[in-house]
Amino acid sequence: MERKIGVVGSSIIGENCSVILTDQNAKRKLASRYQDSLLADVIPFWLRHGIDREHGGYITALNRDGTVIDTDKSIWFQGRGAWMFATLYNTVEKRTEWLEAARSGIEFLRCHGSDSDGKLYFTVTRDGKPLRMRRYVYSESFASIANATYSRAANDDRAESDALRYFANYLRYSFDGDLIPAKIDPSTRGTRGIGPLMITIATAQELRVNLGDRMVNDRTCTEWIDWAIETIERYFVKADLGVVMETVGLNGEIIDHFDGRLLNPGHAIECAWFIMHEGKLRNDQRLIGLGLRMLDWMWSRGWDEEYGGLFYFRDLRNLPIQEYWHDMKFWWPHCEAIIATSLAWSLTKDDRYAGWHELVHDWSFKNFPDAEHGEWYGYLHRDGRISSQLKGNMWKGPFHLPRMLWYCWKLLSDDTPVSCQVNCLKSGGARD
Amino acid sequence: MERKIGVVGSSIIGENCSVILTDQNAKRKLASRYQDSLLADVIPFWLRHGIDREHGGYITALNRDGTVIDTDKSIWFQGRGAWMFATLYNTVEKRTEWLEAARSGIEFLRCHGSDSDGKLYFTVTRDGKPLRMRRYVYSESFASIANATYSRAANDDRAESDALRYFANYLRYSFDGDLIPAKIDPSTRGTRGIGPLMITIATAQELRVNLGDRMVNDRTCTEWIDWAIETIERYFVKADLGVVMETVGLNGEIIDHFDGRLLNPGHAIECAWFIMHEGKLRNDQRLIGLGLRMLDWMWSRGWDEEYGGLFYFRDLRNLPIQEYWHDMKFWWPHCEAIIATSLAWSLTKDDRYAGWHELVHDWSFKNFPDAEHGEWYGYLHRDGRISSQLKGNMWKGPFHLPRMLWYCWKLLSDDTPVSCQVNCLKSGGARD
Repeated sequence: MERKIGVVGSSIIGENCSVILTDQNAKRKLASRYQDSLLADVIPFWLRHGIDREHGGYITALNRDGTVIDTDKSIWFQGRGAWMFATLYNTVEKRTEWLEAARSGIEFLRCHGSDSDGKLYFTVTRDGKPLRMRRYVYSESFASIANATYSRAANDDRAESDALRYFANYLRYSFDGDLIPAKIDPSTRGTRGIGPLMITIATAQELRVNLGDRMVNDRTCTEWIDWAIETIERYFVKADLGVVMETVGLNGEIIDHFDGRLLNPGHAIECAWFIMHEGKLRNDQRLIGLGLRMLDWMWSRGWDEEYGGLFYFRDLRNLPIQEYWHDMKFWWPHCEAIIATSLAWSLTKDDRYAGWHELVHDWSFKNFPDAEHGEWYGYLHRDGRISSQLKGNMWKGPFHLPRMLWYCWKLLSDDTPVSCQVNCLKSGGARD
Repeated sequence: MERKIGVVGSSIIGENCSVILTDQNAKRKLASRYQDSLLADVIPFWLRHGIDREHGGYITALNRDGTVIDTDKSIWFQGRGAWMFATLYNTVEKRTEWLEAARSGIEFLRCHGSDSDGKLYFTVTRDGKPLRMRRYVYSESFASIANATYSRAANDDRAESDALRYFANYLRYSFDGDLIPAKIDPSTRGTRGIGPLMITIATAQELRVNLGDRMVNDRTCTEWIDWAIETIERYFVKADLGVVMETVGLNGEIIDHFDGRLLNPGHAIECAWFIMHEGKLRNDQRLIGLGLRMLDWMWSRGWDEEYGGLFYFRDLRNLPIQEYWHDMKFWWPHCEAIIATSLAWSLTKDDRYAGWHELVHDWSFKNFPDAEHGEWYGYLHRDGRISSQLKGNMWKGPFHLPRMLWYCWKLLSDDTPVSCQVNCLKSGGARD
């Protein structure tokens, strides 16, 4: 399965020739490029530098050349990394090093992930001592998909029950009343965020593909997905304004303050492809249409016509933004837009999406990859100049980039995890 | 006292001719420039756009032309603004509009600043409904100096007792055990920050100059200043490394992780001038020397030799920094460095400080002022290009910039608030 491509990065990653999806040969070439980048550059980089051979789990705070510059561990990334490695094992090839890498994250989570109440930390020390507990529960969602995927890879019953338990906790904290204390006094200004809903979709999709359409807190995974999509559509998708909001009032009203107007195009585009993916699995044109509209609006709000690339934040009314890094170009929105545009094209064969894919693919592969040490820089200035040489930190690690490379490789090879998911929907789960 | 200078900003603010302190004529010209900028541009901008004539208090979230873009109010700025306006009233001229502006912030704080336990919020709505309560207590320190200064301006006894009470609360929350829950689990990694200590110095200095050297929580203001300076010197000032740390371990040890290595040159330079100012008041060469060393080290770490201006963050070991805006140029570190370098020059007559002052003054007055609408932009890219057209938000308002203009005007006119403070030290307070 592995293709030998010589020096990591130099010939494949930094290559800068435009490739458009509408050309069949080019499509195959593109699939190979994603595959090569994944298997010969990005995954080896994290296996080489990111696995803690002494204490287990992953260290993601790496300098350009992979040197560890902070040994503290992100609990998000114990889950995200384990999900990625186990997914490769399940869908690409039964490589022992991938299974072992996944196990390392899973076991670190088991030993050091949670406090005495079972709530997962945000960061811990290298040897697992607690550092920071946050109010919200994305550590739980990532631990859930990690355990679901690992349970299928290793046929591990504890991982299966942990996956279900973490998802149940995620849902309970995210949507049951006041378990997460609000930052903004809810008696003055009630708010809803899109984040917990979109992560519900992605988490439930991963549980379903790996464990079957299981019941969690009185709904099946598919029912949770339906509920989350309906809620997003009802409150956050604003056809009159041509926008997907990040934060709204309790009844979906626009909150005309800094935080209420703040748009995150990359985040909304990620949500759009979760919904398109669901529409594809179900052959549901309504869902596909919803995801396409969300992509259309947020591409048009997020794409930088002057320098290329996707802005991090935009304001609903194009007013100045309070967050300092609003015009920077981060790796992850570009990864999500590469997935969304290629999926949109594959679902519609509309040249417009092939054109957008070409734009975001070319801009990303021109600016983010490090031709010398492999992997991608994460943080660029608006014009594509490197702001930080970090390869990873508490928010960047083996997730958005390898997930994009894996998803697009499979999608463009017509050998997609989607076909597996269709089977899961029909059979009630890969492990049954 | 007011000098008429025609169109706001155009002739004075944007003027870009280098002025060096060592030239006596130039020094007078510079003092006038700071005065004009303060009295004909910056203060009028905030009086015109920032006073809420309906609900009282200040709205700081302003677009380039002064248009309000978020009506939510910063509680920090009710204190900071009231301090600035009352200070002008006390030290420049008894203008009714300044006293009324100060009263507006003080009364808003009285009516809407605090929760039922008396702890001050971080933000409230325009009409004073609670939005956000934060763990830390800088709202209290700014409310304290506002009330101290206003009590002197208006001869207001409630303001005097509020000033003392807010400072007492500030000290109690900041230094008495566990009143502020730690972000990082203290059983794993105990940390100390320089912020609460340096704000103790500045707050106690303002209380002393306005109310006399009063006793607060078993120490006089001067004793609190001594304690804070000693603690900073013991734990944060590292002669062997030539650095002032922001965060250290409980015994001053370097925490070799992202957050522990993070240096904030503008913040440390602000602390340096608080200490130099104290040394000047007491004619204490040891304190002056300490402040000068802190300035020397942090100038050398913070000044951008390539593009000019002061970096926002630096890493102790020049490793990549996790904060996205690390290389941006914010207005406030430049204001603090203009004060620190002019104060250092006035104390030493060392040409090096005049040269640094010239560098930071010229870079700031070239890049930050808005020649069309007045006041300063706050957020520039590394090379000086404007990142955001905001004139204010929850962190930028009538404080760092007018404080710098006022302080440097007075300092270079040899008509300084310092002489007043010396009297206060001797007499036991301006109101006695």
